[in-house]
Amino acid sequence: MRVDELVPGVLGGDRRAVARAISAVEDGGEGLEELSEGIFASTGRAATIGLTGAPGVGKSTLAAGVVRVCRARDLRVAVLAVDPTSPYTGGALLGDRVRMQEHATDPSVFIRSMATRGHLGGMALAAPEAVRILDAAGYDRIVVETVGVGQAEVDVAAATDTAVVVLAPGMGDAVQMAKAGILEVADVFVVNKADREGAHEVVRELRQMLHLGAARDWDPPVLTTASTEDEGIEAVWEAIESHRTHLGATGALGAKRRARLLREVEALAAERFRLEVTSVLEADEELASALVDRRVDPYAAAAMLVGKAAG
Amino acid sequence: MRVDELVPGVLGGDRRAVARAISAVEDGGEGLEELSEGIFASTGRAATIGLTGAPGVGKSTLAAGVVRVCRARDLRVAVLAVDPTSPYTGGALLGDRVRMQEHATDPSVFIRSMATRGHLGGMALAAPEAVRILDAAGYDRIVVETVGVGQAEVDVAAATDTAVVVLAPGMGDAVQMAKAGILEVADVFVVNKADREGAHEVVRELRQMLHLGAARDWDPPVLTTASTEDEGIEAVWEAIESHRTHLGATGALGAKRRARLLREVEALAAERFRLEVTSVLEADEELASALVDRRVDPYAAAAMLVGKAAG
Repeated sequence: MRVDELVPGVLGGDRRAVARAISAVEDGGEGLEELSEGIFASTGRAATIGLTGAPGVGKSTLAAGVVRVCRARDLRVAVLAVDPTSPYTGGALLGDRVRMQEHATDPSVFIRSMATRGHLGGMALAAPEAVRILDAAGYDRIVVETVGVGQAEVDVAAATDTAVVVLAPGMGDAVQMAKAGILEVADVFVVNKADREGAHEVVRELRQMLHLGAARDWDPPVLTTASTEDEGIEAVWEAIESHRTHLGATGALGAKRRARLLREVEALAAERFRLEVTSVLEADEELASALVDRRVDPYAAAAMLVGKAAG
Repeated sequence: MRVDELVPGVLGGDRRAVARAISAVEDGGEGLEELSEGIFASTGRAATIGLTGAPGVGKSTLAAGVVRVCRARDLRVAVLAVDPTSPYTGGALLGDRVRMQEHATDPSVFIRSMATRGHLGGMALAAPEAVRILDAAGYDRIVVETVGVGQAEVDVAAATDTAVVVLAPGMGDAVQMAKAGILEVADVFVVNKADREGAHEVVRELRQMLHLGAARDWDPPVLTTASTEDEGIEAVWEAIESHRTHLGATGALGAKRRARLLREVEALAAERFRLEVTSVLEADEELASALVDRRVDPYAAAAMLVGKAAG
């Protein structure tokens, strides 16, 4: 079956078609262009929620909480757990899926781990396409859960409507997060495991750091949860929904999505061009030799390549 | 003074010209192409050494040890301390420079911290150009010291002739390093602070992991140092020199440098193209609107952009 033959299934919300389409995105093989073309007009309806935080803070339990809240409101919900730095899905993510088993038989819940094995530009470009597939399949809310707190994770989380940053006492401090640029992209902060020692300090430290930052028209709330007992999860949900309402009311949602889309297209174009450059340079023995013999310097060679690959 | 007017100074080994040329690379401003063109033919003589490891393992003390060994052999040596993730040089690097003060008045030693403020493609592309400046200025050995152990750091360290990975007991374990892909790029391992508890375990763990990997024609040695007392530094030096001799003897040095140069040029071309894409997309209201209105999907838009920016 060709990838683009999955389009009707995806649009009809067929779980198997959705799963296979996301696998195709992971693999980065042929037919992705047709798949993208087939589903794109049906996207833009879902609200997307990013969940970022250090390993062990309880992102998955929080994701499970969001799933429960969604189901109580009869909303269809998908969770996409992405690992931007690893080409293969590790054990942690599989563990998370097991934790979600209470929803395994619910047709309105879709849970999926994702890695990239070949998509152009890696997870930064594969994840948005997977989100569009889920969006086109009719999920009302799409939770994008990332592993780790590096730049790649921050980028993926920032490419959602509402970025939720999760912390826990003793699990990576706020200063580290500030260095990763996470304070700037977060719309909602959740301090999980709030029943543990040190939780109040995390909340206080976070509020101080936020206070030091530039004033924004949305003031990111700092909430606490003890998510194993579902404590606080309703407040988190309301903060997420409030944020999205705020974005919609101020016109920021459209602007944010537009900017995100343009940046994504730029990156896709640059990656595609890079492939062309590589093949041109591989074929151009003369230019390669001129470089190695130091007759043409790297900047000049790059300028030549742009011309050649372009032509 | 224009950047390209620094060329004679750099080639003559003038410290101020070298320092200003590296600053120009950091800033990524105009004249870099001319600077690159002016110095490129005079590069390729220096041996480059990468020093990577988690913060606190003692990379800088090791770098200082390498400097002392070089000076005892009457070799000119430069140390470039790069921080790929931060746009500005932080306190840690300044501290490192202070530790190097014993060499502050030695004209055959050049020590410099480096960050990027505007170079196309960030540190991954700025660092090799700074290394070429030092190479053209006549330094025999160039030590590239990185901060942290993320992907960016691994990439910078891997872009040297000999990549030295530094560990210390209790400071980031071998499993973490393996995940970052550092085992594959390391040519020499140094377990520093070998007088501390746990050092033997680090050595053993490392040897086990190396044993599990694929056989390579160079077997990376695992050495120990207690670098505050200069213990073991001579053995590290000999391992570095042996590795380079090995590369030269097998023809791998030329192949490695050639591959590195081609990859760098590809990345420079892709970055340059990305700038063009951005300006084309900014000017092309029609394409942007078609994307936002979902009439053209991201993959199709990227393909169109490649054509337009190219033309």
